Parts: sequence; C-alpha cells; structure tokens
Amino acid sequence: MNREQNYTLLCDFYELTMGNGYLLSGMGDRVSYFDVFFRTVPDGGGFAIAAGLAQVIDYIEHLHFDEEDIAFLRSKGVFSEEFLDYLRTFHFTGDIYAVPEGTPIFPREPILTVRAPAIEAQFVETFLLLSLNHQSLIATKANRIVRAAQGRAVSEFGSRRAQGADGAVEGARAAYIAGCAGSACTLSDQRYGVPAGGTMAHSWVQMFDDEYTAFRTYCEIYPHSATLLVDTYNVLSSGVPNAIRAFKEVLLPQGITQCAIRIDSGDITYLSKKARRMLDDAGLTDCKIVASNSLDETIIRDILLQGARVDSFGVGERLITSKSDPVFGGVYKLSAVEDRDGNIIPKIKISENAAKITNPHFKKVYRLFDRETGKAEADLICVHDETVDDTKPLTIFDPDYTWKKKTLHNFTAKELLVPIFQGGRRVYDCPPVEEIRAYCAEQVERLWDEVKRFENPHNYYVDLSQKLWDIKHDLLQQKG
Amino acid sequence: MNREQNYTLLCDFYELTMGNGYLLSGMGDRVSYFDVFFRTVPDGGGFAIAAGLAQVIDYIEHLHFDEEDIAFLRSKGVFSEEFLDYLRTFHFTGDIYAVPEGTPIFPREPILTVRAPAIEAQFVETFLLLSLNHQSLIATKANRIVRAAQGRAVSEFGSRRAQGADGAVEGARAAYIAGCAGSACTLSDQRYGVPAGGTMAHSWVQMFDDEYTAFRTYCEIYPHSATLLVDTYNVLSSGVPNAIRAFKEVLLPQGITQCAIRIDSGDITYLSKKARRMLDDAGLTDCKIVASNSLDETIIRDILLQGARVDSFGVGERLITSKSDPVFGGVYKLSAVEDRDGNIIPKIKISENAAKITNPHFKKVYRLFDRETGKAEADLICVHDETVDDTKPLTIFDPDYTWKKKTLHNFTAKELLVPIFQGGRRVYDCPPVEEIRAYCAEQVERLWDEVKRFENPHNYYVDLSQKLWDIKHDLLQQKG
Repeated sequence: MNREQNYTLLCDFYELTMGNGYLLSGMGDRVSYFDVFFRTVPDGGGFAIAAGLAQVIDYIEHLHFDEEDIAFLRSKGVFSEEFLDYLRTFHFTGDIYAVPEGTPIFPREPILTVRAPAIEAQFVETFLLLSLNHQSLIATKANRIVRAAQGRAVSEFGSRRAQGADGAVEGARAAYIAGCAGSACTLSDQRYGVPAGGTMAHSWVQMFDDEYTAFRTYCEIYPHSATLLVDTYNVLSSGVPNAIRAFKEVLLPQGITQCAIRIDSGDITYLSKKARRMLDDAGLTDCKIVASNSLDETIIRDILLQGARVDSFGVGERLITSKSDPVFGGVYKLSAVEDRDGNIIPKIKISENAAKITNPHFKKVYRLFDRETGKAEADLICVHDETVDDTKPLTIFDPDYTWKKKTLHNFTAKELLVPIFQGGRRVYDCPPVEEIRAYCAEQVERLWDEVKRFENPHNYYVDLSQKLWDIKHDLLQQKG
Repeated sequence: MNREQNYTLLCDFYELTMGNGYLLSGMGDRVSYFDVFFRTVPDGGGFAIAAGLAQVIDYIEHLHFDEEDIAFLRSKGVFSEEFLDYLRTFHFTGDIYAVPEGTPIFPREPILTVRAPAIEAQFVETFLLLSLNHQSLIATKANRIVRAAQGRAVSEFGSRRAQGADGAVEGARAAYIAGCAGSACTLSDQRYGVPAGGTMAHSWVQMFDDEYTAFRTYCEIYPHSATLLVDTYNVLSSGVPNAIRAFKEVLLPQGITQCAIRIDSGDITYLSKKARRMLDDAGLTDCKIVASNSLDETIIRDILLQGARVDSFGVGERLITSKSDPVFGGVYKLSAVEDRDGNIIPKIKISENAAKITNPHFKKVYRLFDRETGKAEADLICVHDETVDDTKPLTIFDPDYTWKKKTLHNFTAKELLVPIFQGGRRVYDCPPVEEIRAYCAEQVERLWDEVKRFENPHNYYVDLSQKLWDIKHDLLQQKG
C-alpha cells in the first residue's frame, strides 16, 4: 500500500448500502463493537503471526471521501443525498484495540476490536480484514519456512508470482517480520526497510558469449557480493567449474574469500553435496551455497534431513502466495452495541456449526505465561471490565468441554490487545520492522515446541472467563 | 494499481545489479529480446485467459527514477555513479508486443515480447510478470467458475481475503474480464468500471432487535434492490419466513415483485430447494435465490447437478486467490540479442528438464481457425519474418514427437501478438473492460469443448514452424 494512496473506496459495496440504511433509520451513530478473529490456522499449524496493522493504521488515518468519490457514489443511484452529504465530513472517530504485529495469535480470540458509531465501524470492515488477513497469512507461512531452515537465512524472492503489487511489497514486509533475512523486492526496502538483495538471472549468463566470461565480469564489478548462478547450462560440468575459475582468478588475488554460488534447478541435495566438495577441493571453503526453486518448509526440511549442503535459501512463489493454503480466514463480527445510556448490549451470531458461533461482548484477552519457564500456557478471553490477578492461582476451563480444567499457580498475565486509536486519534506508534521482527522471534520462542510442530500441533488453550462464558450461554438460550 | 503510483522500484534487486553490470561492461544498449510465457495451466485446465496488460502499459508509461529513488539506491553502496546518473533519464525506449487481454493462451507460446536495450529489457521483468501472472491467474480461475455456473450470474465477493489491495482491485477487474457479472469491490467499479453491488451483512440483521424489523427496514429503504441475507439465525425457520413477510408487506403493495434472498451457510442444495418452495407457495415466484460461502467451480457444478435452485452465485476467497492453485507461473526469458549490425542472434536456455528448454529467437504466433466451424485448431510459433499463407494447406507437426503431423486445409491464420509499444511510444489503446469481457467470451466460444473440460482436457496444439524448430535444434546441438 502506498502511504499517499486513498483506499477509502476499497470497501465492499454493502458497507455503503448498510451505512446509508443505518443513517436513514436513525442508527448511524449507535455505538457498535466489532471483533476481527480467525477460526483455523493455515497449513494445520498450531499458531499464526499477526501482521498488517501498520497498513490498517495508515488506512484509518487517511479515511475520507473526495468530491469525485461522492459523485461516483451518487451515480450508482441508490444513496440518499443525506448520506452523500454525511460522507463529505466522514472520518473515523472511534476506538481501535489490536494485538501488536509479530505476536503469535490463536483461533477464536479477538486480534482487533473496533468501537465506533455503526456506520464507521461497519465501513472499515473490508480493508481491515484484507490487510490483516494478507499479512498474517504471509507472516505465518514465512515463519514456518524460517523455522524449517534451522538458522540458515531465508530470503523472500517471490515478487513476480505475487498476487498484485501489494502482494509483493507488503508480502515482503510480512515475511521479514516473521523472520526472513530480506527480500528481492527493492520497493519493500525503500518503503519499509526490508533489506533488499540479489545478484543475477540466467539472462546475465546468456547475455555473454560464454558462462566463464559472464562470471568473471560479475566478480570484477561486484567482488564483495558475487553470488554466481550456476545452472544456466549444467551445474556440475559447467557452472561450478566456471565459478571456481572466476573466484580464483578475480577474488582470491584480492584476498577475498567470501563468495557464493546459487543453484536454481535440479536435485538440490545431490547438487549441493557435489558442489560443496568441488568448492572445498578448490580451497574455496568460505564459498556459500544458496538454493532456490519452488521451495517451502516441507522441501527445506526434507533436503536438510538428507544432508544437503545449503547455507541459505531463496524462497519464491510458495511463500509469497502461501501456496499450500493461500487464504487467512479472518472475519469481522458484531459483538455488542451500546444503548443511549452507554450500557453495552452483547450480540451473538448463531450458527448450526458450533465453531461459527461468535463470542459476544466487548472483550479483552490475557496471555498467561509461566513465571519459571517463560512459556505461554494459555490465553484467556474476558469481558472488558474483568481483571486477572496473577498473584493468585487461576483455574481455567475448556469452553466446550467444561469439565476440562487447569489451574495456573505461578504465572504472569499480559494483555494482548493494546489501544491503537482513541476517539479517532492514533495513540500507538508502529515500531520499525526490525523491532517487530525481533519481538516476533522472541514471542515465538515463548511457545512450547508442541505448539510449533508442523503436523498435529498441540492445541493451545484459548479459554473464556466464567463471566464471559455465562453471558454467551445466556444469549444462546435466548436465541437458540 | 493506482494510476498515479510510481512502481519503478517494484523490481527485483538483481535487475539493478545486472543493469549496473551491463552498463559498466559496455552492454547496456545491446538490443535484447525477452519473452513472457508459462508452462502449465492452473488447476490442470486446458487453457488460460490473458489479463494484466493494461497495468503493464501504465507501468511502462510511468517508468522513471525520482531523485529520492536514486538517493536510496546510492545508499545501498553497490551501484556506480555512472549507473545512478544513467537512471536519472531512464525511460523505456523499446518495443513491446503482446496478446490482447481476454485472449485464451496456452503453455510455451510467447504472450508478451520485449525488444529493448539490455538494461531496459531486463529491468521491467518483475512488474511485467507480476501483473500478467496475477491477473491471468484470476481470469483463468474466474472463467472456470463462470462456466460451471452455466449461465447464472457469478459475482466476485473476495476483497477481504485477497492478498493485498491490488489483489482485490485488479483481481476484481480480471474476474470481470473473464465473465463475472460484477464485484463487491467499490474501488474496482470507480477505477475500472467493474459493476459493484451488495446489500447487507449479518451485522445489519444483528443491529436490529429482531430479524423481521431488519428486513422490513431494508425493503423500505431499497425497494428495488432488496436482497435479504436469511442465515443470521436459521434459514428455514426464521430467515425465509421473515423475508417473505417483509416482501409481502413492503414490496408487493408497491407492485414490486423483483427481490432476492441470499443463503451464506449450510447445505445450499437442500436449503435452496426448500426456500424455493416456500417462496413459490407465498406467490413470490420472481424472488431470486443467491448462494455464497466458499464456492468454486467444483462445488457449483456439484450443487447444480443435485438440482439446487440457485439463480446466482457470490464467490469469494476461492476465486480472488485462486485457492486451489494460487500461482500462475509465467517466466521472462532472453530469446535473442542483436549484434552491432542489427543481426538477430538467437539465445537458448538449456535445462535437463526438457520442458524448461526455451524457444529461441524473435518470434510471432499465429492462431489457426477452421473456416467452417470457426473453432481454433492450433497455434503456430514462427520466426518473426515468416508469414503463414492461409490460402494453401499447411502441415504442422508436434515439436517433441515430430512424426505426429496434421494438415490444415480450410483455415484462417490470425496473429496473436499485437504491437503495444514501438520505440518507447504506446501504439495500442486498451479497450474498456466491458469490451475485453465480450471479446473474451467470444474467444472462449471458439475453443473446442474438449479443450474446455475441467479434468483431462484435450491438449491444444502449440507447434513450432519448421524454420524455428531447425534453429532451436541447431542451438541444442551446439550447447548440449
């Protein structure tokens, strides 16, 4: 997203028809609460990574209708002049609470809550979901891939296969937050400070009369960052020998031993082992091997298990689209309204599918950490006016199988949602991406290994307080 | 993409390091030819739909480096001052040929060709691929879904699950080109003229004290476009009866019989049949039924086979991300360079995987239509200076199994690639989206049903001319 871009009209049309309807039926300024939450973790994982809040903040701050927007809406022939006039001064006047970017998040808990007059709260639905869904999807996938690489650097290479320009630029941002070392995307570096890098395509090699001259020329121009792509013709019979020759003739005489080759096709495990031996035999023990070509967490884990000699990975389409599961299903649901006296009236959405029943009311979420291990033990969703006292033992229970209980003794409780906007004014500064990245790594470290498993992870507890559980079940009795 | 947006730095960093390298080694102005082509159709389909060219044109026309871009690149510490100075006046001076949007396209044939000085031709790689890959992906998926709906309208509803803002806005454009009736995305209407529509979310129903009042209020405000969402509480026991009551009390007295209900959860087939009978029994035979909720071509085909009474579909996440296959694998490969005398020297990229060997040389593509049926029979890739004479019989042959031959007798040959830029000047006007949409429908109609099958489609012939085949095999002999 461009910071100068006005994305006000990036809304579903029904947000406007409903807005007009709320205004005409006198409900436009009725204070309403909406939660963003999701129901399942992509790829069957045990947790997701929150991302995309910075773009939400930017969107909210720039929310307004230009005269040309209003003229366009008038041309649709369905809106009242009263509503179009109202839009002239439309801006966001409400409160937003959200989980900071980089935080591990779990199904069913609010990751963002809006409290605002009905028209405003309804209107922002699409962009909020779009930004949080997209970047949380990519951050969650990138974190899996980074963990599979076991400390080896993973670079994001997928711009050309991204689903649109923002898919590339904000996708690279989300990947970096989740632990990637950098990106090929230059704009993501300029805009967000995601370190951009890259050296050569096959076309560089083809452009010269022969592979050796292509490599030698590159080493002469970039002696300190020569990563030579060795698979334009044949990796072992041509690429690696020509790279060795270029390194030895251009770099070693300058005392430079840091260099690299990149393998972008074929059997990475086999080729990397062979190439490693050839490089070592030539004395180029500092030369790194980079692998790319349709990688993801499964393939990386596999080739490392088989002993591939790869020092870092370039990951493209399968990261930037989260190819194996390309949808993050965040939803935006009404949880409460206020009456004229400011009393909060909880609202529920029923479904025959129990998993789709919403948690009513204005809520807060605590993450409970064990004091001894520092590990996250459970999240507890409470009504907004509850406080968890972490100086006393706390018994929590499964919201579906209520006889399943657990008592926490030595824990600290940390609130997950922090104020982002109050009365329309931003009260939160987004940290720079490096800080978010460090915070993300630290928070993922505080999850048990069982939650971080790729397959069949342990179900992290997301429980309801007794008070919230009672309110929910009273509403179910009334409506059911 | 925003028309005022400068996407120049939406490039892979290696395009800049190579550009600097070409300049410093005296190859910057060497005329080069690059092709965009793809290798497999998503979802195992028989053809894809080309889209995304309009955004490529816009990108090329706005290509330039601001002083802040140059300062940013200088800060990376790897570029020569000569190159940074060159970028100050950088713009596109070459030629581009491309397949018009909405055209059915097939693996291995060029869908866009760039002829330009090496630095320029190399530089545009990422954005060209990104735009063509993204929109062709969505257009191809949307066309499958539209065909599955057998004439029923399909609306694109997926903005909230799109991979970024452009994923939503340009995705809606691509979906419309491929046959969708419209989109929920308001910005795509304003920007491209994709008809936007939508009525209410569950929150509208929840915001009122009861479902009937919510429906009645909506009908009063929008008597001519009332589509009531009937699954907030229970479709058959609450939603449909309340909708019938609201239609009868508000619309019928005004003589309005056009209205609709939308079912967004549960068993669409069962619920739509029951709802249809309830509506008919109430005399609301003109009331339409809209279905949504995680639909795609497979589910739509299935529920129609089972006799669902659905008049139109809203399709979200599975369309806007092409969920079942979310990557369109277009690549950008060097095919030739010119020597100082302007002679074209064909270039090839070898691979141990035969499918990854490129077609060398500056090429053109003919689509051969049977004069009698009007159906497309084959595409023929030729060298740029060849001409197909469609007044005489033509024998074509499979490029891999060359004994497989076919002789066309009564055919017309149409060139697929048209000039878009010449000498840096745009020579092509993009048609409005409605025209592209009509052209797409007409061209898909000219494919045999066997090619349009969802599973195991017939392999459409994409053959090489004898001259091109000979050139390719000579190069393979030299390099192999």
